[in-house]
Amino acid sequence: MNKHVYGVILAGGSGTRFWPLSRERFPKQLLRIIGEGTLLQQTFERLRQEIPPKHITVVTNDVQADSIKLQLSEWKDDLTDNIILEPEGRNTAPAIALAALQLLHRDPEAVMVVVPADHVVKAAKKFMKAVQFATKLAMQGHLVTFGIHPSRPETGYGYIQPNKRKRLGAQGEFTGYSVARFVEKPNLSTAQRYCRSKNYCWNSGIFVWKASTILEELALQQPKLSKILKGLAQPIGTSAFPESLRKAYAKMPSLSIDHAVMEHSAHSVVVPIDFGWSDVGSWGSLEEVSPLDKSGNVRNGNIIDMGSQNSVLFADRRVVATIGLDNMVVVDTPDATLVCPKDRAQDVKAVVSLLKQQQAPEHLEHRTVQRPWGAYTVLEEGHGYKVKRIEVAPGKRLSLQLHHQRSEHWVVISGTARVTRGEEVYDLQSGMSTGIPQETPHRLENPGHGLLEIIEIQNGPYLGEDDILRLKDDFGRLQSIN
Amino acid sequence: MNKHVYGVILAGGSGTRFWPLSRERFPKQLLRIIGEGTLLQQTFERLRQEIPPKHITVVTNDVQADSIKLQLSEWKDDLTDNIILEPEGRNTAPAIALAALQLLHRDPEAVMVVVPADHVVKAAKKFMKAVQFATKLAMQGHLVTFGIHPSRPETGYGYIQPNKRKRLGAQGEFTGYSVARFVEKPNLSTAQRYCRSKNYCWNSGIFVWKASTILEELALQQPKLSKILKGLAQPIGTSAFPESLRKAYAKMPSLSIDHAVMEHSAHSVVVPIDFGWSDVGSWGSLEEVSPLDKSGNVRNGNIIDMGSQNSVLFADRRVVATIGLDNMVVVDTPDATLVCPKDRAQDVKAVVSLLKQQQAPEHLEHRTVQRPWGAYTVLEEGHGYKVKRIEVAPGKRLSLQLHHQRSEHWVVISGTARVTRGEEVYDLQSGMSTGIPQETPHRLENPGHGLLEIIEIQNGPYLGEDDILRLKDDFGRLQSIN
Repeated sequence: MNKHVYGVILAGGSGTRFWPLSRERFPKQLLRIIGEGTLLQQTFERLRQEIPPKHITVVTNDVQADSIKLQLSEWKDDLTDNIILEPEGRNTAPAIALAALQLLHRDPEAVMVVVPADHVVKAAKKFMKAVQFATKLAMQGHLVTFGIHPSRPETGYGYIQPNKRKRLGAQGEFTGYSVARFVEKPNLSTAQRYCRSKNYCWNSGIFVWKASTILEELALQQPKLSKILKGLAQPIGTSAFPESLRKAYAKMPSLSIDHAVMEHSAHSVVVPIDFGWSDVGSWGSLEEVSPLDKSGNVRNGNIIDMGSQNSVLFADRRVVATIGLDNMVVVDTPDATLVCPKDRAQDVKAVVSLLKQQQAPEHLEHRTVQRPWGAYTVLEEGHGYKVKRIEVAPGKRLSLQLHHQRSEHWVVISGTARVTRGEEVYDLQSGMSTGIPQETPHRLENPGHGLLEIIEIQNGPYLGEDDILRLKDDFGRLQSIN
Repeated sequence: MNKHVYGVILAGGSGTRFWPLSRERFPKQLLRIIGEGTLLQQTFERLRQEIPPKHITVVTNDVQADSIKLQLSEWKDDLTDNIILEPEGRNTAPAIALAALQLLHRDPEAVMVVVPADHVVKAAKKFMKAVQFATKLAMQGHLVTFGIHPSRPETGYGYIQPNKRKRLGAQGEFTGYSVARFVEKPNLSTAQRYCRSKNYCWNSGIFVWKASTILEELALQQPKLSKILKGLAQPIGTSAFPESLRKAYAKMPSLSIDHAVMEHSAHSVVVPIDFGWSDVGSWGSLEEVSPLDKSGNVRNGNIIDMGSQNSVLFADRRVVATIGLDNMVVVDTPDATLVCPKDRAQDVKAVVSLLKQQQAPEHLEHRTVQRPWGAYTVLEEGHGYKVKRIEVAPGKRLSLQLHHQRSEHWVVISGTARVTRGEEVYDLQSGMSTGIPQETPHRLENPGHGLLEIIEIQNGPYLGEDDILRLKDDFGRLQSIN
């Protein structure tokens, strides 16, 4: 691959449509729903076949950054400077523009391969070959998008019509065409017509272009956005950048790159292709990309089924018994369950909105929360107490911290815990326990080579995660509650 | 009510059809699925309106006895000698025969009102009036059963045809007829014909007769059963009785009272009636007896629904989101979930069989288990540890016990715990903790006036409930693991 090629993974999505498996703080790209690894990890691996990890940038936000770093921890040295944090979500145009700005600063010849973190691409090799072809077109100043041959009259996607009379190049099975037009999500009869005509492709949301080209096009078509962006060119790479970025985003319009640029640009090029793509936009769409049992079900976890067909059955460790379901979705997680017909799976968004309105924790995060040092799982919360299982990875430790409103008891269930309590430091083995009074500085560390697991019982009038004063931290979180 | 009238509640059912809310050790009669109180409590209350509690007998088994005593604890002084424990289930004929034998021993004129513990009767007053009328017929030597006017061509019930030409008495709205014939569960077209003809009633399984009459009929029609039973007449009331009973039941045939007596007796009488009866035989039947929302759903617990209709939606504290369901059953419990169409609800029996085969704990009991001193809930089990929340009622204490294979840590989350550990006795308040090494005799007591709640963390290689050596117990459980 050309040494100026960079991968840009857009990983800011909120993914309400996969609730209850996805949560506001744990969106679709972080889920392991198909095959090995999470969608983010699969996306990274796909790019990494041809693009060095140092050339892969992830655009995300503060809430997801820790989880993303954890999932990509194998490449953490390569990614140190490659995680771009947006202060807030503003759709794809600002995210892409920001990445382009940073890449241009790094390499004036940079070509960006922009991929959403939460799509499935089954034919990864073919995909990277197509990227190689697209790179050539991009080097000539084209804005390249991949168009997927439609396999059904889907009304949930945008469509692209290639101008078959304007071929801009070809290589092997790939051909680039100038775009005749972009079409927004069509109604069913239009989608059926598009499908039959074979003159339309689905808009995959995957793009290849030079950083300089997309910034020039933005300057031309989105002067407001472009002006805000230009104000960031100077502080880039300095300590003033985060604050400049925050201010810039407060004024930034929310725009998709399709609306902002592609639909109006004379340089838009589409490469029709079929690489087993799906945006897995809902529970119902899982069947397109997952292995099915002989009755057409997608099955996962502790399911006992009798005679269901064409259904999506997702469980965890709890028993879920399903009998005679047809085209249904059942998703069970430790704190929430969803049951609906497959064709109503889109409406889960409304459920999430409702939970958010009610300030129910089930919209926000899971009972198990990842942390840079490991994870915790809330086993039970009640009046004046909370019970957690805490896992600390070998060699890791939590921050040195204290709580104003709660005492804690720790019982080790596996591994060795090194406990700092006030001035004391002592080790506990499995079956041993200790108590941490409120206002006492304390720290939990795993000095061993295996996992450390403890049960923590918190007692106190207020047990929110924000009653934490961090005194020292290995992960730079003195200001953050995460 | 005639002073010779006795209530006999048959409470031995296993109730697999309400899984996952019912479990082998927690069957349907113990559930709160409709209205105030459990089905058992409602049944007891219904009889108690006219029959003194001292005259109410419950026939059950060792596994359910503790739960039944807990649910009827308000009447525990009246019931001391009124709980009959069958050594094993042998269908209704032996259970009724055993109760008849004991009642005859107590009162030669005894009239028995035999009612299943897990039926719903909405018109309780009318029911007791009907019982009064039936008692008169029973005093004349009749075997009286109530026949329910069928409201639909149900194929899950037996039917009774009254002989309209043989009226044996009437009072107000009630008339007793000699039985023309009993019909086993019919097919749909037969059931439809029965419904239209208005000449058939559903067999309610509720009976009124003299203890002496039913025993005479059993002697006539079931000589084998009767002979086994006669062997019990002598030890009755002596300390030899439990052992004699165990031996007798080992030989006892398994028979329903309908097959054993009613279908062939010349004395069978039916009183047609409508008192809002249902045997609530499956999740689907709940709609007959429960309040419905405006879309025809039965709803319970933390349900977020969007547009479902005619469905049974049963949740607990976990969020269950349902969208656009039609004639479905969704039942969610802390460790198991069921999803099926209403007309497949009977098949849950097969799921329970499967779980039993797999020795999965979810067929046997709930995460929350009632005990005479309170209850415990398993919050999590893992390799080498178990976490429980334990509730101890005011003034109660667990047995003085020790464990060979586990240590325990207790953290008080509300109330006051009086802890016996070896020779020491000390009190702990909320936020305090203690450790119990293995092999150390210990006891947990609630000396306060409010609930005591603790979190218990068990550590050890084996954590089964049967690793318990009871040294002293307030509830006579030195031999039992319950």
